[in-house]
Amino acid sequence: MTPTDRPPIARAACVGGGVIGGGWIARFLLAGIDVDVHDPHPEARRIVGEVLDNARAAYGRLTGAPLPPEGRLTFHDDLETAVAEADWVQESVPERLDLKRAVLARIDAAARPQALIGSSTSGLLPTDLQEGLAHPGRLFVAHPYNPVYLLPLVEIVGGRQTAPEVVTDAIERLAAIGMKGVHIAKEIDAFVGDRLLEALWREALWLIKDGICDVETLDDVIRYSFGLRWAQMGLFQTYRIAGGEAGMRHFLAQFGPALKWPWTKLTDVVDLDEALVETIAAQSDAQNEGLSIRRLEQIRDGNLVAILQALKTGDEGRGWGAGKLLSEFETELWRRATPSGNEPAAQADEGHELVVPPAWADYNGHMTEHRYLQVFGEASDRLLARIGAGTDYVAAGGSYYTVETHLRHLGEAHAGDTLRVRTRILSSDDKRLHLLHDLGRADGETIATGEHMLLHVDRESGRSAGAPEHILSKISGILATQEPAPETEAIAGRAIRPAGNGAA
Amino acid sequence: MTPTDRPPIARAACVGGGVIGGGWIARFLLAGIDVDVHDPHPEARRIVGEVLDNARAAYGRLTGAPLPPEGRLTFHDDLETAVAEADWVQESVPERLDLKRAVLARIDAAARPQALIGSSTSGLLPTDLQEGLAHPGRLFVAHPYNPVYLLPLVEIVGGRQTAPEVVTDAIERLAAIGMKGVHIAKEIDAFVGDRLLEALWREALWLIKDGICDVETLDDVIRYSFGLRWAQMGLFQTYRIAGGEAGMRHFLAQFGPALKWPWTKLTDVVDLDEALVETIAAQSDAQNEGLSIRRLEQIRDGNLVAILQALKTGDEGRGWGAGKLLSEFETELWRRATPSGNEPAAQADEGHELVVPPAWADYNGHMTEHRYLQVFGEASDRLLARIGAGTDYVAAGGSYYTVETHLRHLGEAHAGDTLRVRTRILSSDDKRLHLLHDLGRADGETIATGEHMLLHVDRESGRSAGAPEHILSKISGILATQEPAPETEAIAGRAIRPAGNGAA
Repeated sequence: MTPTDRPPIARAACVGGGVIGGGWIARFLLAGIDVDVHDPHPEARRIVGEVLDNARAAYGRLTGAPLPPEGRLTFHDDLETAVAEADWVQESVPERLDLKRAVLARIDAAARPQALIGSSTSGLLPTDLQEGLAHPGRLFVAHPYNPVYLLPLVEIVGGRQTAPEVVTDAIERLAAIGMKGVHIAKEIDAFVGDRLLEALWREALWLIKDGICDVETLDDVIRYSFGLRWAQMGLFQTYRIAGGEAGMRHFLAQFGPALKWPWTKLTDVVDLDEALVETIAAQSDAQNEGLSIRRLEQIRDGNLVAILQALKTGDEGRGWGAGKLLSEFETELWRRATPSGNEPAAQADEGHELVVPPAWADYNGHMTEHRYLQVFGEASDRLLARIGAGTDYVAAGGSYYTVETHLRHLGEAHAGDTLRVRTRILSSDDKRLHLLHDLGRADGETIATGEHMLLHVDRESGRSAGAPEHILSKISGILATQEPAPETEAIAGRAIRPAGNGAA
Repeated sequence: MTPTDRPPIARAACVGGGVIGGGWIARFLLAGIDVDVHDPHPEARRIVGEVLDNARAAYGRLTGAPLPPEGRLTFHDDLETAVAEADWVQESVPERLDLKRAVLARIDAAARPQALIGSSTSGLLPTDLQEGLAHPGRLFVAHPYNPVYLLPLVEIVGGRQTAPEVVTDAIERLAAIGMKGVHIAKEIDAFVGDRLLEALWREALWLIKDGICDVETLDDVIRYSFGLRWAQMGLFQTYRIAGGEAGMRHFLAQFGPALKWPWTKLTDVVDLDEALVETIAAQSDAQNEGLSIRRLEQIRDGNLVAILQALKTGDEGRGWGAGKLLSEFETELWRRATPSGNEPAAQADEGHELVVPPAWADYNGHMTEHRYLQVFGEASDRLLARIGAGTDYVAAGGSYYTVETHLRHLGEAHAGDTLRVRTRILSSDDKRLHLLHDLGRADGETIATGEHMLLHVDRESGRSAGAPEHILSKISGILATQEPAPETEAIAGRAIRPAGNGAA
């Protein structure tokens, strides 16, 4: 990912705003990019609004990193106006070659010559889409997966006329908004992902049609076994492990013949007739009884957020797969939010808002104890970033370590509550930094406080050491500009008092 | 899951101890079940030992619930002796019908008549395996997925002679060890999971052979998109969301025809010839450069643990899919570990050992702050379980809430460190419970302490209330039996002292 203060996509245009177009819009806006939209569908604003609501809820739980201010969303009645200023235009209109060609020709004529044009098609060939364009070299397929605001994959497929540097450029620009562009070497119908999905889908339809299992059993077979493997490693890497130290050749030699026999059966295409449609639909209704699509979307997004966060910790904390990508995106967000040494002194804290994720509830239904400390730890990280002791500073060898913490619980938080954390510096010297975080509701009620003593450390020696002048001056700047808050500060410096029957 | 103090499988036998057999052995042992093993392979002990090492490392990170003491592992030279006392015999010998039949006949003759016999076959029909057995009714296929100690799925497939109640019984017994048995209605070669895997595998081989993409791209396509969806919802439930409020009939009507065209291509079976084997093996080597199989296993298990934990929080904390299953297993573990009202007074704390998961490291490489509080929170939960205020008590309406916490960091912990947490009651009255946790290394060095004040609460009114006599007497019992520890207790009751330059 390019370390830059400006996102590589400065302004995006989306033509077509259904579930996929809406997902692209959300992805751009939440990365801080202004988006111009054209979609003649009468319900376009409602559909985009719903996708955006889901996306905002998901991002609020996805990361503790400082998200940029949301981009500006503008709807345009006119396609040409919508695309005029963009440096990335994403086409997501219905899957008909004639319609896509007509729309892409208008986009190509109205967009700036250097703008990239991606098509969300899930199956049409880019060479066919390029026909008749004035600037075909900047057109490519950028095929995303639903929900676009959470799933990182974009299949990048060039046509005969696509310029090779456009593919590279597109992949880099997507990385800066947390997406994973993968280049498909040759164009074929349905590309790679949908080819794989269709193969499995075809087999699944036979299994249902032949009464081997119902749709719930089939889903269970996937989600309790290889689905868990594929979220992290895919097909070949998983089989490499199965092959053991002898490697992939061994695996293919050992399992190739054994797998071959069942391959020769059921490769016909199943007839998706009325009876099969009815069977599947009825079983699907039974599987999802009481779960509306809206509920399923929320559950899906909550699970995706949690899985992405889980993978962020993979490979001994270095991050793995989609989690590593998230981690890189967060590093970039922190970098953008961290003032460099040349900027003016950090401002006093304006508070940081958060929504309590459902996952943080304990068996009492309340936010779990250690999540309070997580919130305070992240607030400390934000304060450290503001005084120039963020991730870059840690990488360079200095850091603040917490040596003591005092938490007081004055109220309760539940999943979904909107809370605000405010941070004050209570005292400091050249090595020590004494913080007080206040976690409260919108109405000002404090539900918990966290008092922390941090010690500045030289990471190489592992010993405490005086902080450099540029950090100390930022601390002084904050101490000088903080509003006085005697009531808050009176909380500090207290000890826990024992109960009646002591052992000591 | 049956609420019972005794696991429904009291003693298991495993015939065949390779990677799959070893996975079963680990699954049983870590659920507290004694396992007898027969495997004539000269390296069987080493292979089982390696799987068991992986499994122990994974379980140490998988759950904070109290795992039972590991079962006893006994190797037997003689198959008949190994299976004689078991109530579940699992056969995992190589995939040859004649060999499996011979082994199953010996198992059937030597095992107790009421013992269940599961075969790990990934493709042979149970009806064929039953031929010639004296008690064919208790034989079924129990096909697991690697790694067996972490992936919950077991495909349960009965043959023509399998008794229906045996299938139900097997699914219930698997649930008690955290596994998900799904019943496949009709027996076919390769059952359901491997059918789906083979369909996708066949398509994947074509994509590599035709140079559409390489193995790394193909894996990326899976793990950055539908792999993340399938870890939680599988195929049909995911497509139900895609169909929107109009439901599954709409999805099939809309996407059926569009998908049909690519289906008609590439359904031939690819020839896995020398050239294709070489292509795949070389690309796989490139993808995994520097990653040994052992490393890949560790990364895979770490990711699986994190994904399972992530899904435990799904559906607003109720748990989803494999995470819900884990949560139910943990509830069962807590129930088994919680003394009932009739048992003698709780003993003084003997300490609880844990290994710091890699995922707990922060950007300094140290265990993250809030994980200390997580460790102390779980230690408090164990103490509460010991005094009869565990999950059953909370469900009945009472609970202890933490009102104040004081953490002191005296050292650092890194990923992989083995730590021990010890808990003391410092003081108490009818409402308050004052705890001190000490987190230290094996050599006794304390690296952090947590001092906590808990308040007994009536959950319905949300107010503090006196704890019942049965809890207070357990607390008194612990206070009376605790060894004095004046040095540890001197840590308590301190406040954070400010640094030089205060704002107050």
